[in-house]
Amino acid sequence: MLDTLLNLKSALVKAMEKIAGEENVLYKKEELIVYSTDSTNSTEQKEIAEVVVFPQNTMQVSEIMKYAYKKTIAVTPRSGGTSVCGACIPKKGGIIIDFSKMDKISEINKNNLICKVQPGVVIEDLKKEVEKQDLYYPPDPSNLKASMIGGSIALNSGGPHTFKYGATKDYIIDLEVVLSDGTIIHTSSQCSKDVTGYNMTQFFIGSEGTLGLITEAVIKLIPKPEATRVMLAYFDTLEDTSKTVNDLISNLITPSVIDLIDKNTIKTIESFYPTGLLTDKTAALLIEIDGFKSALDEQYNKIIEICKNNNSSYIQTASTKEEEEKIWISRRSSFGATAKLAPNVMTEDVVVPRDKIVPLVKGIQYICDKYSLKTCIMGHIGDGNIHPNIALDLRNEKERLNFEQAKSELFELALSLGGTLSGEHGIGSEKSYFINKAVNPDCLALMKKLKQLFDPKNILNPGKIF
Amino acid sequence: MLDTLLNLKSALVKAMEKIAGEENVLYKKEELIVYSTDSTNSTEQKEIAEVVVFPQNTMQVSEIMKYAYKKTIAVTPRSGGTSVCGACIPKKGGIIIDFSKMDKISEINKNNLICKVQPGVVIEDLKKEVEKQDLYYPPDPSNLKASMIGGSIALNSGGPHTFKYGATKDYIIDLEVVLSDGTIIHTSSQCSKDVTGYNMTQFFIGSEGTLGLITEAVIKLIPKPEATRVMLAYFDTLEDTSKTVNDLISNLITPSVIDLIDKNTIKTIESFYPTGLLTDKTAALLIEIDGFKSALDEQYNKIIEICKNNNSSYIQTASTKEEEEKIWISRRSSFGATAKLAPNVMTEDVVVPRDKIVPLVKGIQYICDKYSLKTCIMGHIGDGNIHPNIALDLRNEKERLNFEQAKSELFELALSLGGTLSGEHGIGSEKSYFINKAVNPDCLALMKKLKQLFDPKNILNPGKIF
Repeated sequence: MLDTLLNLKSALVKAMEKIAGEENVLYKKEELIVYSTDSTNSTEQKEIAEVVVFPQNTMQVSEIMKYAYKKTIAVTPRSGGTSVCGACIPKKGGIIIDFSKMDKISEINKNNLICKVQPGVVIEDLKKEVEKQDLYYPPDPSNLKASMIGGSIALNSGGPHTFKYGATKDYIIDLEVVLSDGTIIHTSSQCSKDVTGYNMTQFFIGSEGTLGLITEAVIKLIPKPEATRVMLAYFDTLEDTSKTVNDLISNLITPSVIDLIDKNTIKTIESFYPTGLLTDKTAALLIEIDGFKSALDEQYNKIIEICKNNNSSYIQTASTKEEEEKIWISRRSSFGATAKLAPNVMTEDVVVPRDKIVPLVKGIQYICDKYSLKTCIMGHIGDGNIHPNIALDLRNEKERLNFEQAKSELFELALSLGGTLSGEHGIGSEKSYFINKAVNPDCLALMKKLKQLFDPKNILNPGKIF
Repeated sequence: MLDTLLNLKSALVKAMEKIAGEENVLYKKEELIVYSTDSTNSTEQKEIAEVVVFPQNTMQVSEIMKYAYKKTIAVTPRSGGTSVCGACIPKKGGIIIDFSKMDKISEINKNNLICKVQPGVVIEDLKKEVEKQDLYYPPDPSNLKASMIGGSIALNSGGPHTFKYGATKDYIIDLEVVLSDGTIIHTSSQCSKDVTGYNMTQFFIGSEGTLGLITEAVIKLIPKPEATRVMLAYFDTLEDTSKTVNDLISNLITPSVIDLIDKNTIKTIESFYPTGLLTDKTAALLIEIDGFKSALDEQYNKIIEICKNNNSSYIQTASTKEEEEKIWISRRSSFGATAKLAPNVMTEDVVVPRDKIVPLVKGIQYICDKYSLKTCIMGHIGDGNIHPNIALDLRNEKERLNFEQAKSELFELALSLGGTLSGEHGIGSEKSYFINKAVNPDCLALMKKLKQLFDPKNILNPGKIF
């Protein structure tokens, strides 16, 4: 690391420059410090890598991995750097491979309902490009303006539309992957159905870059729904809120979004981005339906009836795109508003079977109150997936310790309700200390054997998941 | 095998009786011969197992595997025995584990949209049970009256509704799996979203019992669509047929079924099960849409318009459930009718990207004509997945050899079009000789390493896939 301190080019830096070109390598300490973080407000000690390299193509990624494999150097993959579980934070120095310059959409094929993309494509850009052809890529992690498809596949990210449309894993047909020794494989054909051999595609999705590096993906698209309708329904109890979701399902309605916003979140949004939200209510449901125009009115009216039958005390409907957008802006402001409460926001991502949502939310409120943590709760109630956004000052040692304690209790709570640690954000370095409790020991042992098989030198994103 | 010839109880038979009870073990030669087949008309030499055991629960399966592991005895799993790729045929003697007595649906949870089943549940029974609660399990392999969920998961089976709803893999939340040494694992939590560790669930789906034995599954359900509409549209060219599919997608229509039936299939169905099909047409599309009643008329009319614009020469519509059923009966009779043409029917399952469907179908017709094989072609055109049903007499050596040659050319054709060997039937023992050409060598090597890791003694369904 003396080279780094003196901003000199080490042998590793020179090797990376030879592979990717001088203009695609960073090695100065001030640059490396920037790359020691992602969107995680980690409470852990920061480490820095020795070099950041921006490959231009798959062959360069393969060359980098061959070098890293030969020399046993840790490699941390990174695309948008928007991970909130520490997936992009280097834990053992070495190389950061930043995929942001591999950002091409090389094909959109409307007849086959697929597109082919490199890992550095920003998700919102992908969505907009395919929408130009009336196609739809549903996954929409909330940071989609910055997050990139490579990381999104590696973390199997979700978003509000997962309840109806599934998560990222449901849209990946084929992957090009570089293995730890630099070998390049394709995991499947480019057919929408393929049962020829094991399902290697699904195996890499959600593996957080610990088994291989994704260098290209063939993505399934669907025809874009013709229209949407949105409403915000307020409730005085969590029980009524939860029962509304069950009653929608019983009435054969599958909303494209069904998100929960709790009282604290409503209040916080309204303080910083006032749009007239009702701050005296216990919770609100943001409900979106989509599909053919002709089917929406009937569903919309049915939903209003179901909400009223469950004692919804006010329903904010939307009859224009502008009114819909106003409701969405409130929802999307939840994280930003919470971030104004304190210097840091820690976002958790526990998930439970849907019928355990009330004890989960009440339990989270209890735990956070106990540790005097300002907490805004929102999440994808249809999926049983809840995000407590906890505002605190990490420089305050007591607050930090309180948060650490609350986080463990929160995980215990989710597990006790038959749930688990993460629904869509991943484990990374932030939750790995708890995975022993979440996954049964024999299954965990098998996962570790798989990691050993794919990455015998433990150079692929070490310190993540396990 | 002397014990088998004399119908004596070998040490293995006695061990199985000790685990599962005498009444749950078969060992007489005439019984074992019955269990040397599945629904595959295999052209290969038959082998028989030494014993068939019907476990009652997961612990017994674990005990059987512990015994088999210790003694290095091959185990062939079986549920409905409806495989058409030889997945249930014993290739190395040993034990057949028949899961048909583990046939309980232990839970249907409407709030969580899941059910929990044992492997021996018949798929049609499962569909009917959940439909009583207005829930829907979409996968519908054509043999669903006999095929069971365990095999269906192990083979990742599909069916006509895959185009809109996805295949079996899209409906499995958690699996209980017994590994080769008898270890019992759960692959996931029972949450609809779970990114805690690797996606072990997907890894076992489609692995054809070569990595572990499925003893319980938690299955995702969806609300049952309110209504369906069906039609049968005839075309004079394959080009018009294929363009119709593309135009439906361009018009944002996602049929719940879009199946192709070729001229030979139409003629064969009409000869044996006459319902008034038009036998002078080149092809027909069976199109089903589903969803809210209020949205169907508009789509139905739009589809008719699109078919007409693509020169559909006749459209058989259905305005009652009876008329819909009449169309479905024709489609479902295709295999049965073909089976009347000759003593045997061989069903293939190639798949290509959707825009290669015309050269695929024409190529199949060309190959089968070249080898004088009577072939009825039908399949899931929306998925690019085509089933040539080839009627022949396997006792006729020339026909058998012609079929073998045609099959290899058919695989070559699919691969040359960017497709692969199987879209929904699996590889089993019937297509394993071709997998080297279908999967890239480095990916295949990785699959083989995985098999070695999961099953170091090669006792789990040996001779399948590889």
